[in-house]
Amino acid sequence: MAASSLLRSLTRHARRGYAGTGAFSHHHHQQQPWSPFSTSAAAAAAARDGAAGRGLPGLGPTAKGEKARVVVLGTGWAGSRLMKDLDTRGYDVVCVAPRNHMVFTPLLASTCVGTLEFRSVAEPLARIQPAVSKSPGSYFLLARCTGVDPDAHTIDCETVTDGEKGALEPWKFKVAYDKLVFACGAEASTFGIHGVTEHAIFLREVHHAQEIRRRLLLNLMLSDVPGISEEEKRRLLHCVVVGGGPTGVEFSGELSDFILRDVKKRYSHVKDYINVTLIEANEILSSFDVRLRQYATNQLVKSGVRFVQGIVKDVQPNKLILDNGEEVPFGLLVWSTGVGASRFVKSLPFPKSPGGRIGVDEWLRVPSVQDVYAIGDCSGFLESTGKDVLPALAQVAERQGKFLASLLNHVMKAGGGHANSETEADLGPPFVYKHLGSMATVGRYKALVDLRQSKESRGISLAGFVSFFIWRSAYLTRVISWRNRFYVAINWLTTLLFGRDISRI
Amino acid sequence: MAASSLLRSLTRHARRGYAGTGAFSHHHHQQQPWSPFSTSAAAAAAARDGAAGRGLPGLGPTAKGEKARVVVLGTGWAGSRLMKDLDTRGYDVVCVAPRNHMVFTPLLASTCVGTLEFRSVAEPLARIQPAVSKSPGSYFLLARCTGVDPDAHTIDCETVTDGEKGALEPWKFKVAYDKLVFACGAEASTFGIHGVTEHAIFLREVHHAQEIRRRLLLNLMLSDVPGISEEEKRRLLHCVVVGGGPTGVEFSGELSDFILRDVKKRYSHVKDYINVTLIEANEILSSFDVRLRQYATNQLVKSGVRFVQGIVKDVQPNKLILDNGEEVPFGLLVWSTGVGASRFVKSLPFPKSPGGRIGVDEWLRVPSVQDVYAIGDCSGFLESTGKDVLPALAQVAERQGKFLASLLNHVMKAGGGHANSETEADLGPPFVYKHLGSMATVGRYKALVDLRQSKESRGISLAGFVSFFIWRSAYLTRVISWRNRFYVAINWLTTLLFGRDISRI
Repeated sequence: MAASSLLRSLTRHARRGYAGTGAFSHHHHQQQPWSPFSTSAAAAAAARDGAAGRGLPGLGPTAKGEKARVVVLGTGWAGSRLMKDLDTRGYDVVCVAPRNHMVFTPLLASTCVGTLEFRSVAEPLARIQPAVSKSPGSYFLLARCTGVDPDAHTIDCETVTDGEKGALEPWKFKVAYDKLVFACGAEASTFGIHGVTEHAIFLREVHHAQEIRRRLLLNLMLSDVPGISEEEKRRLLHCVVVGGGPTGVEFSGELSDFILRDVKKRYSHVKDYINVTLIEANEILSSFDVRLRQYATNQLVKSGVRFVQGIVKDVQPNKLILDNGEEVPFGLLVWSTGVGASRFVKSLPFPKSPGGRIGVDEWLRVPSVQDVYAIGDCSGFLESTGKDVLPALAQVAERQGKFLASLLNHVMKAGGGHANSETEADLGPPFVYKHLGSMATVGRYKALVDLRQSKESRGISLAGFVSFFIWRSAYLTRVISWRNRFYVAINWLTTLLFGRDISRI
Repeated sequence: MAASSLLRSLTRHARRGYAGTGAFSHHHHQQQPWSPFSTSAAAAAAARDGAAGRGLPGLGPTAKGEKARVVVLGTGWAGSRLMKDLDTRGYDVVCVAPRNHMVFTPLLASTCVGTLEFRSVAEPLARIQPAVSKSPGSYFLLARCTGVDPDAHTIDCETVTDGEKGALEPWKFKVAYDKLVFACGAEASTFGIHGVTEHAIFLREVHHAQEIRRRLLLNLMLSDVPGISEEEKRRLLHCVVVGGGPTGVEFSGELSDFILRDVKKRYSHVKDYINVTLIEANEILSSFDVRLRQYATNQLVKSGVRFVQGIVKDVQPNKLILDNGEEVPFGLLVWSTGVGASRFVKSLPFPKSPGGRIGVDEWLRVPSVQDVYAIGDCSGFLESTGKDVLPALAQVAERQGKFLASLLNHVMKAGGGHANSETEADLGPPFVYKHLGSMATVGRYKALVDLRQSKESRGISLAGFVSFFIWRSAYLTRVISWRNRFYVAINWLTTLLFGRDISRI
């Protein structure tokens, strides 16, 4: 049979497929109606129990014979760890989040300058918890939660499409839960300073790192264009980091290393114009041991980072203004002054912890309602627990996710998996946080590891190559999948062998 | 010295640095005035010889004692190969292009579905020709050429900033050349069909592949949202490819392989809704041997690709209309119907080849003017040469770049490197194109290799695993740097071991 006649017969076949609104249906007539989704199923469920009663489609409540449904809001350290450990023999997992992957935030700064690839620090949820793509009742839903009805045990959601052309309009739906876990994180703090959101870049998501990288490479190239003034060249290549916490320090370290190793070689025309300034109102790495702080400062100064102690008052397109009136022109501004409660968290009708986070008891439950929990940066101990709100650290979030997974698995095995059926059974010991130490890198082969359990206590503090090695190993084993562990190792190896990649794609 | 006092002293130091307009200058007082850039230098040059006479800054003409300057427009196959081979002992290389890397177009389709990483198929120009980042007179300029003055031996340029926030406004400048090489490629053909540019995605740049990937993953996730109708789900997951040339066929093959291997596993809820349709007005792979065409058709049909023979009349946001009035709804539309002369090429004041490309003689010179050449998809033999215009293939472009580099090196050694000094010396034999065969993949471990030298001649034709192996090896050795060869191999290995990555970053 010649290709052309084969093509014609295929063509006829395909054309039939398009006729009328039943397009493709001849290929799928064997299929079952799609359950438990679809408006009709949801409407039936809504009619039955009023869960999706406001006319929205959605996932209706589970029946007693079915698996109970844990709805998790967020794919950060807390939510991902929780979902990884949930026992999917007894629970369906439904994750509602605006991104389908977890980000290895401690390695994010390395991707901005090309030490690591973006994809190496992003772990798809489907690899962390395969049930969301395989199990009939488990889903990942690319959506934002917009409200919660604790009495009806439902949440309101809206799809996230980033305004992509040809995509659906934001689509509203409801999801009924047996257990609801807030793991939706915090927002970058701007302290209400004008212009931060418009002109600075945060460093919390992969797309932030991509933006920083594109900007940095663009400015390096623009400063090479004939006729750009000396002043403008210095501005374009002035990278300013606001905030001297671990993120700001690590990013400054990576950046100065990039400048020393790669820019000097690959952008030799402009190498003398590039500078990094770190602005901090108080001290850098204020939670670290004083000797480590000093070591970090020395290392960063040695690699060319300049420190400015000051408070930013205003941010304009190409410069920022300090509280003493000084103007600091910049080509790239990275803002990493910590995080605070998000607008969504503030809008929730639950008692809050000091600092405005969702208040939880010692078992991470939201005590005013049934079957609701909160973990990670969005949650904090209620004042009534007598415990301090824990710092917004990956370490805390990950430990809370792990704790809550085992608590929920325990509850499920005790017969309390479904809504409003939580037995008064023993929940086991409450959540206790034990700090395992803090780490920060300050450029190539240099890291700080602070193993003290609190600011006041004494303990081992390390700096230099040994801590670099500990740091890298610690993170390699935290990176969840073997695929990404492998890629991180390969990325580090190629950076060592070939230098960093500078294509601006 | 305590960290805090060190910090204070640094702070004072840095603050001084910001005072006044001379910011940072105390760090750089030892520097030489920047040559040959800077407005003053360019203005002096302009006053001397009128090269940048219209008041624009720029790179002035070279003097006899200096290296001659080859200005190359473009970083595609032709321009990159030319710059790689240019003898930088006698030439300065100035590249003006809107992207700082070359794209391995034959592997681009594989990046859309995650078989390869984006970065593995992009080679930074600085790695292809290190002089642009190291040699004092060589530059890569992120800009677009807007006009050429062959008498004055200058081009007009404008920086490309993609409207990035905080970047410079487009900045105009001039560059004087001794030799000018057009290697600026072609534009995707839309045949004037309404809506193509707005609603379809081409597949020519890395950002196109990124957009296709983001769209595909978005649609896979959106179709999982509760309450989406069956019809809408089928639309979202209907991937339509228009154009049955190698790009369209390879993309269809990659896509169907992605669906068979990864979607079935990772998006099992929606796997029965995803479909690929290839629309072609005539025959697919029309330049290939008839047996290979048949093999390709069989393979694609086997992996679920459907063929439609038809002509697209109109493209709307979510559907396209065929010439027979049929409506084809789609969630993703990839347009690969070949290329034609770009608007910039059309605007140039040179005689054109059939098809509207820049007309060249047998030595790839633009014969009406001095010191101007054109290679790759933007150029074609003038009718007067009696030769056919060569097809727009990477193979042709790469061979032309190689030829022209050796011609220019020869001219330089004969003392004709500078403007208007081309001797009447022997240029050697003219450019002759010898077709080495065509290749296309049709999904996993299947490729076609057509080794015939023309459509009419006879030769070896291969299909199946052996050709897959030849194809992959051929491309691995074309990938220029060892870094990217290494990454392509690693990507293929990880895809084999772990499947494709599905994080939507």
